[in-house]
Amino acid sequence: MNPNLKAALDPRSIAVIGASENPNKIGGRPLLYLSRFGFKGEVYPINPKRSEVQGLRTVPRLADLAHAPDLVIIAVPGEAAVAALEECGEAGVKIAVMMTSGFGESDPENGKQQERAMAERARARGMRIVGPNSQGLANFGTGAIASFSSMFLEVEPKDGPIGIVSQSGAMSVVPYGLLRGRGIGVRHSHATGNDADVTVCELAAAVAEDPALKLLLLYLESIPDPHHLAEAAAVARDRNLPIIALKAGRTAAGQAAAKSHTGALANEDRVVDAFLEQHGIWRAQDTADLVEAAELYLKGWRPAGRRLVAISNSGATCVMAADAASTAGMSVPRLADETQARLRAILPGFASAVNPVDITAALLTNSALFSQILPVIAEDPAADAFLVGIPVAGAAYDVEAFARDTAAFAAVTGKPIVVVAPQALVAGPFKREGLPVFEGEAGAVRALHQFVAHRELMARAAKRMPSPRGGGEVRGAGPSGTRLLNEADSLAFLAEAGIPVVPHRLCRTEEEAVAALGTVDSPVAVKGCSADVSHKSELGLVHLGLRAEAEIRTAFAACRESLERHGSGFDGVIVARMAKGRREMLIGAHRDPFFGPVVVVGDGGRYVEALPDIRLLLPPFGEEEVREAIGRLRIAPVLAGVRGEPAFDLGTLCRAAVALGRLMSETGSAVETVDVNPFLIGTEPGDSMALDAVVVT
Amino acid sequence: MNPNLKAALDPRSIAVIGASENPNKIGGRPLLYLSRFGFKGEVYPINPKRSEVQGLRTVPRLADLAHAPDLVIIAVPGEAAVAALEECGEAGVKIAVMMTSGFGESDPENGKQQERAMAERARARGMRIVGPNSQGLANFGTGAIASFSSMFLEVEPKDGPIGIVSQSGAMSVVPYGLLRGRGIGVRHSHATGNDADVTVCELAAAVAEDPALKLLLLYLESIPDPHHLAEAAAVARDRNLPIIALKAGRTAAGQAAAKSHTGALANEDRVVDAFLEQHGIWRAQDTADLVEAAELYLKGWRPAGRRLVAISNSGATCVMAADAASTAGMSVPRLADETQARLRAILPGFASAVNPVDITAALLTNSALFSQILPVIAEDPAADAFLVGIPVAGAAYDVEAFARDTAAFAAVTGKPIVVVAPQALVAGPFKREGLPVFEGEAGAVRALHQFVAHRELMARAAKRMPSPRGGGEVRGAGPSGTRLLNEADSLAFLAEAGIPVVPHRLCRTEEEAVAALGTVDSPVAVKGCSADVSHKSELGLVHLGLRAEAEIRTAFAACRESLERHGSGFDGVIVARMAKGRREMLIGAHRDPFFGPVVVVGDGGRYVEALPDIRLLLPPFGEEEVREAIGRLRIAPVLAGVRGEPAFDLGTLCRAAVALGRLMSETGSAVETVDVNPFLIGTEPGDSMALDAVVVT
Repeated sequence: MNPNLKAALDPRSIAVIGASENPNKIGGRPLLYLSRFGFKGEVYPINPKRSEVQGLRTVPRLADLAHAPDLVIIAVPGEAAVAALEECGEAGVKIAVMMTSGFGESDPENGKQQERAMAERARARGMRIVGPNSQGLANFGTGAIASFSSMFLEVEPKDGPIGIVSQSGAMSVVPYGLLRGRGIGVRHSHATGNDADVTVCELAAAVAEDPALKLLLLYLESIPDPHHLAEAAAVARDRNLPIIALKAGRTAAGQAAAKSHTGALANEDRVVDAFLEQHGIWRAQDTADLVEAAELYLKGWRPAGRRLVAISNSGATCVMAADAASTAGMSVPRLADETQARLRAILPGFASAVNPVDITAALLTNSALFSQILPVIAEDPAADAFLVGIPVAGAAYDVEAFARDTAAFAAVTGKPIVVVAPQALVAGPFKREGLPVFEGEAGAVRALHQFVAHRELMARAAKRMPSPRGGGEVRGAGPSGTRLLNEADSLAFLAEAGIPVVPHRLCRTEEEAVAALGTVDSPVAVKGCSADVSHKSELGLVHLGLRAEAEIRTAFAACRESLERHGSGFDGVIVARMAKGRREMLIGAHRDPFFGPVVVVGDGGRYVEALPDIRLLLPPFGEEEVREAIGRLRIAPVLAGVRGEPAFDLGTLCRAAVALGRLMSETGSAVETVDVNPFLIGTEPGDSMALDAVVVT
Repeated sequence: MNPNLKAALDPRSIAVIGASENPNKIGGRPLLYLSRFGFKGEVYPINPKRSEVQGLRTVPRLADLAHAPDLVIIAVPGEAAVAALEECGEAGVKIAVMMTSGFGESDPENGKQQERAMAERARARGMRIVGPNSQGLANFGTGAIASFSSMFLEVEPKDGPIGIVSQSGAMSVVPYGLLRGRGIGVRHSHATGNDADVTVCELAAAVAEDPALKLLLLYLESIPDPHHLAEAAAVARDRNLPIIALKAGRTAAGQAAAKSHTGALANEDRVVDAFLEQHGIWRAQDTADLVEAAELYLKGWRPAGRRLVAISNSGATCVMAADAASTAGMSVPRLADETQARLRAILPGFASAVNPVDITAALLTNSALFSQILPVIAEDPAADAFLVGIPVAGAAYDVEAFARDTAAFAAVTGKPIVVVAPQALVAGPFKREGLPVFEGEAGAVRALHQFVAHRELMARAAKRMPSPRGGGEVRGAGPSGTRLLNEADSLAFLAEAGIPVVPHRLCRTEEEAVAALGTVDSPVAVKGCSADVSHKSELGLVHLGLRAEAEIRTAFAACRESLERHGSGFDGVIVARMAKGRREMLIGAHRDPFFGPVVVVGDGGRYVEALPDIRLLLPPFGEEEVREAIGRLRIAPVLAGVRGEPAFDLGTLCRAAVALGRLMSETGSAVETVDVNPFLIGTEPGDSMALDAVVVT
């Protein structure tokens, strides 16, 4: 690990510039925490006005220390903070944690520029900066709590297998508080603030190296440096460490708020989705998503599939569990006939032994039913995971035994299990047995599904990127000064890249167009060609199904006339074969300013903007991944063949998308955007081809 | 109110057949509850084997009582329960609460038949039955707790403004437990079980008459009697009482489980959606949905719109609140310039005063900021609702003052407000001030949105059904023995109903078809006509764009040949004008076995089954409602006009849907299903018409 980041996570010595006697001041809190939570290294309060704070001797200035501390907290305001940073750089400090606010988040122009200047000066001296506007870093493995969060006063820390890395101060500790409330220990709780130098993703990559972690949670308001997040994901994949990321600023309103919070730059949200998925990172939609399933990740379970068996004393729990499973994409398989027969021998006649297993209210008069059925169900091969629901119990129920038996059952099967127990007196014993307990069926199934689906996602990412540390360098948008190719040049460009295009000829004169009628299979399409026009049909530049010379002449004249009337250049007409494909798809590519090349596949035609049905892919990817992406389009059933129609050839489309991805990723590629709409697909591979294209280089 | 249902909700006297000394037995619990929770009426334990149970004198048989009790609990098993029911009927009991299991839920054939027979015998004697398989009824307004639920032992009851009516026993008390845990009182908690006689919806209609209620929660596994639910909704609308319904069995897996739970019949889930919406009932997706927003309903707030103003000391809360609002369909408007200026004068420079209002960590050193900004924000006209988020606080924060100030702010504005406070020490003071507190931003906004959107839904329903008690009688599917009309008869049928159809002629001979060419504008479409065929294009029965006599003859021959080859009747061909409309829509109607007539509008064409984009409407409805339904289709943006295209004429389509709804609802209507696909729409009203139709009478 980079020595600066090592100093951030595991410093041997910490100084506080602006050290305060008052533990409720920003410069006082860290001193309190360092003494309270057992930091073993040296602590140096720096304060020119007092000889002692919180029982520690101070020095007036950083330069007065004999040795430069590893980490310095800067807790003075405004210009004093900038001066303090300067002193840190001069002294040879490894990492400065700058808590001071009022930089890029309040002044996107000058503040951001000042941040860049500070980061540059620091780096030139071998120092790195966390912040500014950072709440600080907290490592409960070492007691290095360089943070002023109030949370650690209120909620007793406990070291544990979870790490939280966040831009926001609040979101570095809110999940901490929720997890601690569930009895779960948290080791890392770091807030990076404005990310002027060390970014949340860079720090996450360092935290991911901690071998004690079983789950890493991230809160991000922007991802300006996807390569760091890719690195964090690669480190995590190496160790089979799951990452859950809450990327806020999903909507325009959220992005505007993020800008004035941490000065965050807006990311294109669909690209964020594609990127996280590609790297095996589960995307949480809200805070609850970050923590609800956390317990399941800590059990060492290796889910084998999505088949759920539910067991309850309430029919309603059975119904709602089955609904929730289906909605989440989990199945509710029948138990084996033999299992059912054995269950029927135990349960009353009005109980259900199929799956869900409904013990019914008979459990009130016979608590033993529960312990009797679990071993039978444990032997059934149908389940990949279990839900046990006891929505109501109390006196006359042996809840302690239910919990014990469920824990034993979980140990025997080794399969993921969730418990639904809205009553505190039922939840208690199950929690004490170490089982994950939820208030409702939907929440329990959601958590279970997340855990299972996230493991699937991680497996796919690992398969796709077997050599994690490699991976293409992410390149943002190139220089401006772009050039739009006309249709003929665009099609030629695609053909060059190995993408099949419709047989056609560019004809600059009417006579050439008429002559082309003999060389391209009739009937033909005639389209006006101009680098100045991208939407041709609006301008009457598309003439279809022509056979006769006179029709060609008329179309040629109409195209020229229309382009001239609109003041657009006229590069001739394209005479193309009328293609045989049956459905218009689209493929395209562009460069995201943060994430680099993005390839789009989807339903094509006139309304791709109004009614988008697309999926995004980030190179590198293969045919299989394109096929999977297409399988998740709304129109997927039609592509697979409905109403007796044959399935479409998707291979050509998949290969074209892969070729586009490669084209965009090649070093030195000058392509900025590619828009192929329509890419016609048919039943036979020979019928699938690009009909039209716009390439910008 | 019906006297039987009045006896169910407010009995003067209660007997228990199968009374038990053991309060943990089904026949013992109600006796314990009746004494513990202050029932003022007479209680008669009936037990032939003991002279006394739980300190009360028994009688051996119901017939031994001097007067028939209003309500009798039947807590004996199997055949004894059937015999007990018989005794109740003979004695003149008003309502029998049958807790016994093992009827329709375990034997869908004989069990259901036995239930029907019991209900018939009871009704003939003026008695009604709740159950069997019922956990019982509980009214904490009167102490009439005819229930064996364990919940009331574990969670202290408190009378309050909420009613719960459920088929499931567990779901009659799980929301009770969750609400009580939030300090909210619950008056009614009723479980109807198998609904052999009194259904959950019928009981709900009676409960809705309780003037003390401010919120009614329903748990349903099937709705075999929508007219009762419509009645409950009408009663509730009269009193502005909101109803939230959790209809489980949404999915095939859930429906299968529901069948073995309460013997529930499966409803078509999309029709359930349409029905609940029509009647102003909010549909909860899970248990959490039932209770999460409950507190908001009890405040007497009258939301005026969907504009949210968020206030927090955490930028992350601001970002996530803005994301959540946008996602839910609420807006985050800018505060007025004057408000912003006043806020800037109070807050530090790096805070945000736009909306969301980010106080920042500056609140740590100055708790007064909070109380200073609220009065300023209260005067801004931009907000319809507020979110106040304090994700982290503690020592040095004056949380008590924050809570007090927020409560005062809420009282001054009179607008809905939600508080986000994941820390218990922050949540506590806010809860004590009577404010609704949530753990996260997403949950808080979800609850707020539900409350606001539900009030909008109720207003729409009230406007649509100003005379609530009227409303068309719901009629299920008619007798079988249906007849499929051929296309010509179907089109004639539509035209008769006032729906515009394409100009056409039915031609039984080739010569008639040729002659038609002169009477219908050319080019024409020729379609084979047969009552035996509904998907014509698969059989090559559609020939478009014909102009010449020879083409007509060829098409006629091809249609006849194809129908004969497939063994289908040949009723001639339809020669129709080629219509000018630009987009194929569909309208249709069918009779739901439970909900009666259902009208469907949506995107038309070949893939309506594979890629459904439809909305359902239940008559009676008007043009405005069809227009609103169309506005929620996926293709709505295209219909409104995109890429410079003019908007489509939707008036003709809307009127046609209204006509279909009327047609289906007319007394004595013989129509079973209508399927108009395509209903072509164009820019001008004259271009919109039915091109094809299949009517089954």
